Amino acid sequence: MIKFTERAPYAPVEYLYDVEEILYRGKSSFQEIMVIRNPYYGKMLILDDVVQLTERDEFFYHEMLAHVVLHAHPEPRRVAVIGGGDGGVVREVLKYGTIEKVYFVEIDEEVIKISRRFFPEVSSGVDDPRVEIRIMDGADFIAKRKTADIDAVIIDSTDIIGFARTLFTPEFFSAVKSCLTDQGMCVTHTESLHFHRDMVVEIQEVLKKVFPVVDLYTATIATYPGNWWAFAVASKGGSPREVRNRASIPTKFYSEEVHGHAFLPRGLYEKLMKRELEW
Amino acid sequence: MIKFTERAPYAPVEYLYDVEEILYRGKSSFQEIMVIRNPYYGKMLILDDVVQLTERDEFFYHEMLAHVVLHAHPEPRRVAVIGGGDGGVVREVLKYGTIEKVYFVEIDEEVIKISRRFFPEVSSGVDDPRVEIRIMDGADFIAKRKTADIDAVIIDSTDIIGFARTLFTPEFFSAVKSCLTDQGMCVTHTESLHFHRDMVVEIQEVLKKVFPVVDLYTATIATYPGNWWAFAVASKGGSPREVRNRASIPTKFYSEEVHGHAFLPRGLYEKLMKRELEW
Repeated sequence: MIKFTERAPYAPVEYLYDVEEILYRGKSSFQEIMVIRNPYYGKMLILDDVVQLTERDEFFYHEMLAHVVLHAHPEPRRVAVIGGGDGGVVREVLKYGTIEKVYFVEIDEEVIKISRRFFPEVSSGVDDPRVEIRIMDGADFIAKRKTADIDAVIIDSTDIIGFARTLFTPEFFSAVKSCLTDQGMCVTHTESLHFHRDMVVEIQEVLKKVFPVVDLYTATIATYPGNWWAFAVASKGGSPREVRNRASIPTKFYSEEVHGHAFLPRGLYEKLMKRELEW
Repeated sequence: MIKFTERAPYAPVEYLYDVEEILYRGKSSFQEIMVIRNPYYGKMLILDDVVQLTERDEFFYHEMLAHVVLHAHPEPRRVAVIGGGDGGVVREVLKYGTIEKVYFVEIDEEVIKISRRFFPEVSSGVDDPRVEIRIMDGADFIAKRKTADIDAVIIDSTDIIGFARTLFTPEFFSAVKSCLTDQGMCVTHTESLHFHRDMVVEIQEVLKKVFPVVDLYTATIATYPGNWWAFAVASKGGSPREVRNRASIPTKFYSEEVHGHAFLPRGLYEKLMKRELEW
């Protein structure tokens, strides 16, 4: 059996997947792109040797990244998705009847093309008339906007290294805040609480310098090493723990109940931020 | 770099660990035993090529396996630990001042010996005068007891294959119930909710045929493939979600707050049991 070995950045373990078929191997201006088929996960999208999504379990990540802010915001109309070229987050955003506009900002057009070709069920929303595709650096897109008219900025980046680093700076988060409406929120993944605890804390600290309300929720994603995946969420208005939008949307895992439960218990969060947790 | 490749039973991914040093390799009557040193996790205990514990993160599993039932029971005095030859669960049990007796029932004496030698901080409790070591099959130990005088049975088995299978049968759980005091509880791991969802549900169903109260909680364990680790807990008395024992014990992760939060939200649990969750 052919194997694909993944060594994710900073992860102390490599993951080894059986490869039934190599469906695509190419190189864009930004990264190596590979699509393989695995007997359990189905098709898998791999960028620079790191698994981005699998047919089988992509919904865990995409639902948990998109729906917490979109249920915490009372009525999301205009959303910016930064990264996420596969289209999975865009698909989730379009489930809400209130959505009027989705800026889909991806630096690497090749990822959108490959996803259209190999993951049509993930990229199913990208041709929706409400979606405006912008092929550019997400940090540039945010920095150049002059109006505060976006209700949610959802950052779906690769690991926090290389060209994705610009999406985790104080300057970027300040610019995000300037684009947001009064009750606007933003969310970004911040790697694994098991493997990258310090990075999780640092991004919370950076966000707290910019936003009045910052919080943390987690979800377990089997295909991201460390699994216990942390999402940083920041709000200009109310707490993202609260569900304000009662839209009923089809999901496989997310629910209003999961929403509240996904946030770290307060005491654990406080210990984490005081750097009193060690592992 | 030398690598250790773990293919856990039924897991659709292999884990690859760097090996700085092979500290021990041997074979008992039951299994192959290996101790390696990894740069991140420190010493790792491996049985039949499956990682059982690491110096760095063993506390997640041992705390979450032991403390939920020992905090849900109002005053645990007599405990049986089935398996767990490394001694990690015994160490956690002994943290309670109320404990008078711990039956430590391990089928493979070699595991206890190797743990004393390489993991003294894990096996630190095994020589405590309250601990009675029984080298025998845990199912036999339970079946042969004639008195209902145990407050908690904590089952710390290897994966649910081979000789550990006897610890997951209806007959075994019925015998466990017969050993328990009126408010007695038992707990066992039931593999990963990501990878072994059907097995998690089946063990809940088996327990429900025996016990009036059965529930499920989870913890993320980075070194067990699938990570989202499920624990089945059964009670002859009250709900294990409730904390009745206010004993203050030193822990790294477990807390009363974590206790309640670890249980699946009710709606998610119901969907799981109706087999309405798919992934």
